[in-house]
Amino acid sequence: MPVPAPNLYPPFNIVRLSHVEYRVRDLAASRAFYVDILGLQVTHEESGRLYLRAMEERGHHCIVLVEADTADVGVLGFKLYDEPDLERAERFFAEKSLPTAWVERPHMGRTLRTRDPWGIPLEFYVRMDRLPPIHQKYRLYNGVKPLRIDHFNMFSADVDASVAFYGEMGFRVTEYTEDDESGRLWAAWMHRKGGVHDVAFTNGLGPRLHHTAFWVPTPLNIIDLLDLMSTSGYVANIERGPGRHGISNAFFLYVRDPDGHRIEIYCSDYQTVDPDLEPIRWSLTDPQRQTLWGAPAPKSWFEEGSTFESAEPVPSQLKAQPIIAP
Amino acid sequence: MPVPAPNLYPPFNIVRLSHVEYRVRDLAASRAFYVDILGLQVTHEESGRLYLRAMEERGHHCIVLVEADTADVGVLGFKLYDEPDLERAERFFAEKSLPTAWVERPHMGRTLRTRDPWGIPLEFYVRMDRLPPIHQKYRLYNGVKPLRIDHFNMFSADVDASVAFYGEMGFRVTEYTEDDESGRLWAAWMHRKGGVHDVAFTNGLGPRLHHTAFWVPTPLNIIDLLDLMSTSGYVANIERGPGRHGISNAFFLYVRDPDGHRIEIYCSDYQTVDPDLEPIRWSLTDPQRQTLWGAPAPKSWFEEGSTFESAEPVPSQLKAQPIIAP
Amino acid sequence: MPVPAPNLYPPFNIVRLSHVEYRVRDLAASRAFYVDILGLQVTHEESGRLYLRAMEERGHHCIVLVEADTADVGVLGFKLYDEPDLERAERFFAEKSLPTAWVERPHMGRTLRTRDPWGIPLEFYVRMDRLPPIHQKYRLYNGVKPLRIDHFNMFSADVDASVAFYGEMGFRVTEYTEDDESGRLWAAWMHRKGGVHDVAFTNGLGPRLHHTAFWVPTPLNIIDLLDLMSTSGYVANIERGPGRHGISNAFFLYVRDPDGHRIEIYCSDYQTVDPDLEPIRWSLTDPQRQTLWGAPAPKSWFEEGSTFESAEPVPSQLKAQPIIAP
Amino acid sequence: MPVPAPNLYPPFNIVRLSHVEYRVRDLAASRAFYVDILGLQVTHEESGRLYLRAMEERGHHCIVLVEADTADVGVLGFKLYDEPDLERAERFFAEKSLPTAWVERPHMGRTLRTRDPWGIPLEFYVRMDRLPPIHQKYRLYNGVKPLRIDHFNMFSADVDASVAFYGEMGFRVTEYTEDDESGRLWAAWMHRKGGVHDVAFTNGLGPRLHHTAFWVPTPLNIIDLLDLMSTSGYVANIERGPGRHGISNAFFLYVRDPDGHRIEIYCSDYQTVDPDLEPIRWSLTDPQRQTLWGAPAPKSWFEEGSTFESAEPVPSQLKAQPIIAP
Repeated sequence: MPVPAPNLYPPFNIVRLSHVEYRVRDLAASRAFYVDILGLQVTHEESGRLYLRAMEERGHHCIVLVEADTADVGVLGFKLYDEPDLERAERFFAEKSLPTAWVERPHMGRTLRTRDPWGIPLEFYVRMDRLPPIHQKYRLYNGVKPLRIDHFNMFSADVDASVAFYGEMGFRVTEYTEDDESGRLWAAWMHRKGGVHDVAFTNGLGPRLHHTAFWVPTPLNIIDLLDLMSTSGYVANIERGPGRHGISNAFFLYVRDPDGHRIEIYCSDYQTVDPDLEPIRWSLTDPQRQTLWGAPAPKSWFEEGSTFESAEPVPSQLKAQPIIAP
Repeated sequence: MPVPAPNLYPPFNIVRLSHVEYRVRDLAASRAFYVDILGLQVTHEESGRLYLRAMEERGHHCIVLVEADTADVGVLGFKLYDEPDLERAERFFAEKSLPTAWVERPHMGRTLRTRDPWGIPLEFYVRMDRLPPIHQKYRLYNGVKPLRIDHFNMFSADVDASVAFYGEMGFRVTEYTEDDESGRLWAAWMHRKGGVHDVAFTNGLGPRLHHTAFWVPTPLNIIDLLDLMSTSGYVANIERGPGRHGISNAFFLYVRDPDGHRIEIYCSDYQTVDPDLEPIRWSLTDPQRQTLWGAPAPKSWFEEGSTFESAEPVPSQLKAQPIIAP
Repeated sequence: MPVPAPNLYPPFNIVRLSHVEYRVRDLAASRAFYVDILGLQVTHEESGRLYLRAMEERGHHCIVLVEADTADVGVLGFKLYDEPDLERAERFFAEKSLPTAWVERPHMGRTLRTRDPWGIPLEFYVRMDRLPPIHQKYRLYNGVKPLRIDHFNMFSADVDASVAFYGEMGFRVTEYTEDDESGRLWAAWMHRKGGVHDVAFTNGLGPRLHHTAFWVPTPLNIIDLLDLMSTSGYVANIERGPGRHGISNAFFLYVRDPDGHRIEIYCSDYQTVDPDLEPIRWSLTDPQRQTLWGAPAPKSWFEEGSTFESAEPVPSQLKAQPIIAP
Repeated sequence: MPVPAPNLYPPFNIVRLSHVEYRVRDLAASRAFYVDILGLQVTHEESGRLYLRAMEERGHHCIVLVEADTADVGVLGFKLYDEPDLERAERFFAEKSLPTAWVERPHMGRTLRTRDPWGIPLEFYVRMDRLPPIHQKYRLYNGVKPLRIDHFNMFSADVDASVAFYGEMGFRVTEYTEDDESGRLWAAWMHRKGGVHDVAFTNGLGPRLHHTAFWVPTPLNIIDLLDLMSTSGYVANIERGPGRHGISNAFFLYVRDPDGHRIEIYCSDYQTVDPDLEPIRWSLTDPQRQTLWGAPAPKSWFEEGSTFESAEPVPSQLKAQPIIAP
């Protein structure tokens, strides 16, 4: 098995993925998409910057939209368990000669800014402004009724190496795709918070962000979103789905925001809190891996992604390719 | 508008579509598909012949499966309102020099056998054995939980002519696709029972049966069927969907039986009982006609269909073509 | 069987129930309820009067709200098939010495105003302003996403007589509750348009309107409405449900408008177009009749209703009583 | 706030609730209920003993049914993180002079048997036989399609004390009901695995087990179960629901097994992994606490529960009472 054993005693305690900063070229257009179509809630708005949360989140934001000349990804944020974890995290990255800095972030406590070995900008924190619950304010539910941010999926030019690094930080593999010939990983799903993933890596020109996913209550909310998008000017933003992934068993839909950032809408994965949970292996040649129901994904889905600020992607050396829709 | 005005006082009163006879090459394989996967209920079984009904039907059968060397369609059945309608129907077809015969059909009263001008075998009846209700015997619900037969969709080499003929019989157009250039019909949906259609016609090599549709309670039943088919050996029988048709607004899935007969699983159309209901026009060039969410249908869906017994299909002269998935 | 045989050739052709006029004491409060909570669409608004339609309706209105000093019911409206049916209807009521008048109704063609033998104000018409379809304008969907008006349920002091009268007009019984001892009808469900009912009668102080029902897509829309009402100031307006009726098999919820007019939200009944459909009998002593899952209905549900304008209700002589929640 | 601060560094690491042993008087009747109606899967069967798991579980069992003369609860099981946690747990209970023993349990590794201060029998383990995944074997899904065991709810005669004890073990309070007058806890929900609860305590004659809950995909599965139970001889086993709890926001149904053990079917709570998640307070006088939609719970739901083997319940001294359905 090409998957590392879970690191039961990681160097610092990551609770979950937390937030993403998207840089967008037209904040009004992005606001319309994320707020009026997806239904995320505005928690703070200032010139050139918009903070959003999903319906059951009490942290201040899961998305920050920042108006910019280039549409890329500013940072991926993760919440740590307790204050000492911040120092331990700083030591972990510093010992690997990765850049670390303590930065001031609005609405957040002390924040460690760093990068992974391939340049993905990361930030870690313990405290973020906590907001009153709105999950029972049903008048506010709108669009796809997003409940919470669920995971980040990243292109990696070396998935084995990415999995080793994030595994050392305590992310545990739940499912993975193996290239039968080379025995190398083609993709892997890794979690901290007890679902199928907080982060996932897919082989390709990397590092790039493939998508950010949001959890919704039922498949019917996803059907509602498709109906809404297709009759209000967003039919071209629908990229793939609805369908069920073989991997993760999730019911999914992929849509693109006005800048092309990809958002997955997602429900129905499973609980993974057992530390002895056995990772599920899929072969790269099994089309049900992608879609349990058999339909291949479109080419754009395999090839397009969002670059990270100041992180130049490089091609993967892995030659194996999945089945792609003609 | 290329659509004829509704015939408010038709020559005889058709209540609804009623049943289809499919000829199949391996009755056991078809039984497994229709009973174990789709969840239709067996009402009578004899050597080489199987009668099925859906969960809310009280008539004896909506599908008859007959073992045969060739997989084609034996007949399409329609229920008439009252005994005098049988004579009126006989007169209608006879006056058009179409073949008519009174036939004995098991589990049915007096039955008129005839063909439409293109050779589609039709039968009309008033009485069929009535069975006790099972719609509240929830232990019997299985597969996709089919509630009732909903419509027949047929390829026609001359949709204008088909619509004129069935319109004369009292079928009313609810939606239609027009070829913008020629002003001719490319497809039309026509009803008797108060939904979007009992019969529909699509341009192509005809006459052939494109599909028979079944009504199910909610889109989630269709998702359940996809999960079941894709994990029990029927993934290759999934042809198109799930999706929402622009036309009819229905949530749909198309599957193929072991002989390739196409079955649509369907929910969410709308009520059409108003005799002054305005037909909705769609342009052949509008891709949302096919799928509101934008995905084109596969080639097989446009080209393949079941022939009718002793009815040789002929090509359409209409050159216009819809958008087809590459 | 205490149920009359269906009248296959009624004196005039009623297509379906069409609309209700509710008189309300505070039009702004009623607007908030019907538009913001239920999600009906405003089609015309003038001083003291509001016209509403549901999402798949193309007729101008299914509810007219009229501001008045007394909260009662102005009229129940029904759509006829063709112009000659209007004259036939006029003759039918006149021959029974019931009052008839041709009235001007805004947004409607020639309209016959009359009353049934117990004083229920009725109006019949063929033409109503037809509006463009909005069923695929998904941005407009709101509240419970009401698709169409489904039926009226009325208290009757003599259900046998009500059923006989409406049966003569062509309404066909689909299900009924019989008092085992007296053999008399306690309640009956009667349809024209092919569902379980356009009108229903329940034993009690009558005539009064028990409720008007709206059809919605799935049970999840009803759950959404419960969540919305209970967290936006309408928790006291929830009267009964959610549940499944034994009778009709419908998934239901009963809510009360600001004046106490009762609205049923409803999905999942079955198709009844067969003229030989066998009525289903229920015993008054069977609690699953009311709620398949066993819970009895509250007292208010059995006792409260809206009076009709100028129609004094009288008590029923039938002594039998259903099971009522303590 | 009467709720203790979360213990971020508990003495041993509990991953989640794991299993319950129910003693039942007629194993065949219980098998019919849990397997044919609820849809749990049999993983091992031997004379007088049945092991069951839910669809996404890979551990060997979440319920053990043991035939016995008395219907009570044998033990509540919890999974620990790693081997050293077993020793730490043993020390924790021994230091409090609670009984500890290492027991042999079939299909499980080393198991610590103990009791909480009120006599509730508990067992802790790290290893249980792991079984192949079945969550994508959709042919096996049946009944309510239970995905996983979710929580235990217990009557406690002193909720403040129970919460203090389980809080010391690392369970964190997510929501609680406070008696406004005395300032004492009337009920509390506490979790380890990142949902609203692994354990909950409700004021009353205790210790007794109020219910064990199972997680299902959507509210429609709960509606399916109601339809199935009410038409296959189990209508009297339906106790309360469907409804949405104010507390936890869950969509719920309570049913009773053939011995009266209460099972909750449950979906839609929220993620609670943040260690700084603020507990939500509810007043005992707020009826929406119980049911967001306003309906009070029946008396049996407040009064009846399953005793634990060899643990005599005692009455609570707390006088405050919730609103109970008449």
